[in-house]
Amino acid sequence: MKRVLITGCSGFLGRHLVDLLGGDSQYRLFGLTDVEDDVIPGVEIRHLDIRDRESLFSAIDAWKPQQVFHLAAITNVGFSWTHQQLTYEVNFMGTLHLLEALVRSVPHSRVLVMSSAEIAGLDVQQTPEGPQLFIRSPYALSKAAMEMLASLFIAEGNLTVVPVRAFNFTGPGQGEQFVASDFARQVARIEAELAPPVIQVGNLSARRDFSDVRDMARYVAAAGFYGENGRLMRLGSGRVIEIGQILDTLLSLSRVPIRVEVKPERFRPLDIPELKGDCPILHKEMGLSPRYSLEQTLSDLLDEWRGKVRGDKKV
Amino acid sequence: MKRVLITGCSGFLGRHLVDLLGGDSQYRLFGLTDVEDDVIPGVEIRHLDIRDRESLFSAIDAWKPQQVFHLAAITNVGFSWTHQQLTYEVNFMGTLHLLEALVRSVPHSRVLVMSSAEIAGLDVQQTPEGPQLFIRSPYALSKAAMEMLASLFIAEGNLTVVPVRAFNFTGPGQGEQFVASDFARQVARIEAELAPPVIQVGNLSARRDFSDVRDMARYVAAAGFYGENGRLMRLGSGRVIEIGQILDTLLSLSRVPIRVEVKPERFRPLDIPELKGDCPILHKEMGLSPRYSLEQTLSDLLDEWRGKVRGDKKV
Repeated sequence: MKRVLITGCSGFLGRHLVDLLGGDSQYRLFGLTDVEDDVIPGVEIRHLDIRDRESLFSAIDAWKPQQVFHLAAITNVGFSWTHQQLTYEVNFMGTLHLLEALVRSVPHSRVLVMSSAEIAGLDVQQTPEGPQLFIRSPYALSKAAMEMLASLFIAEGNLTVVPVRAFNFTGPGQGEQFVASDFARQVARIEAELAPPVIQVGNLSARRDFSDVRDMARYVAAAGFYGENGRLMRLGSGRVIEIGQILDTLLSLSRVPIRVEVKPERFRPLDIPELKGDCPILHKEMGLSPRYSLEQTLSDLLDEWRGKVRGDKKV
Repeated sequence: MKRVLITGCSGFLGRHLVDLLGGDSQYRLFGLTDVEDDVIPGVEIRHLDIRDRESLFSAIDAWKPQQVFHLAAITNVGFSWTHQQLTYEVNFMGTLHLLEALVRSVPHSRVLVMSSAEIAGLDVQQTPEGPQLFIRSPYALSKAAMEMLASLFIAEGNLTVVPVRAFNFTGPGQGEQFVASDFARQVARIEAELAPPVIQVGNLSARRDFSDVRDMARYVAAAGFYGENGRLMRLGSGRVIEIGQILDTLLSLSRVPIRVEVKPERFRPLDIPELKGDCPILHKEMGLSPRYSLEQTLSDLLDEWRGKVRGDKKV
């Protein structure tokens, strides 16, 4: 059995990756989470914060994973603006701790390092004094620094490191601080008469590549097991939509009429107008493509919120 | 009087900047150092580690500096390879703490953020999956991350942030872990018959722009006081030499004949063959140029080591 570790196993993507790999008897699954008392059937879990270097070293040394999916991260761009220190400590220093622990305890292991298409927020401007670096968010900075860090370990040659950049993804289980889930929750609350029939939104014109989280878990698994050392892979659907299209789809799924209200305070500073790019390795070399339509994804997400707000209503 | 803070005031460059500004009655000097018990006449000092966020916040709040020279850093590339965590915590997280402390306590202050020409070790390679980031050393990574961090604070607009990239510099006071000082120390020890007449060297063909540290202190002062918000400045002499030329100059200054021995273990991984670049703002706009010749710099450095090893001999 292959010893597979998922960091951030309680997270949105982590859960779906556990669902995907958990049924397969060729994998023995280990998980790291900072969610206290979280229990996931089929996964041997340690509860620790990857900022805690010593605990992480001891977990890696005890488990000696052959394949690591490093998903543990602060993933929300807005949150990263108000929690810069935490974002860098988790996303950047946490990755350092993990890679150093792997070099020490399992030097020939494979590790997928999860970066983000938000890295497009790194802008290298040519000036007479040389190329100057600008970045658009603490989150993008943490991921750019993490990719540079990965490049040092790739050069060192002990580990097999697969750096991947995920485009946006959504679906059941996503936290309400992300745009699609936020909209779906508002719709469900309005349907349940827990809120007035007005949905509050930010920038609807930003364009993003949205995948279903269950498709993203398939892409991540393929990249982790089959990606090449040091070869960057993008993970996405290849279809780019406006945020407004997510809103329109959810409004069309709503059981009640809803009015839209644009709130400037919901706009993010330094937002990137469009994030798109091909994923030739994923789509052409590996032959992977989306199984979920945007409608299906959003319908599943809305159904999940309908169930959750039913609980709110009882209280 | 202008309230001027120098972080890393006990460091190589910090000391020389104190020397430069200390005599000027228009400045009230404050200094941060992690060197225990260090006392510098004319400077109000606090002994703290900039990784210690709370102590740093309290120092900044007490002093409310109008002008900051942020020099505190791990500065040795070789050391950064064996001390990655420390390098990132000091150079990157330490800068975060400082900038956040300034925003909170002195929101309209000016801060010079000291980066390095080693940032040329950031290589953005175009791939079919997008631009991939490679970096050549933990030190270069820490400085690239620090520059990106500075760009966030520049965009935010509270502070005036002047990002500078220094080329190499040397001269009296430099630690022996840096190449010119290492060579000078070896020559002085050989002259004093503390070592056999063989000097051990690494890569002599690397080409670098070397300034005298006293010139560099002038450049840093000018950039700090007069540099524009967010406008990157390079600081250097404009003359590029081979490391071998430093060795040759020191050998010509030696009082005894010395044999040269190339040691492969003294080569750095992923070394950059040449670091050069114009400094148009410094040289043309500000009209600053070197006052020290390379010979003078190395002669002063060697004289200092001659004095120091005389102490070794007595012991």
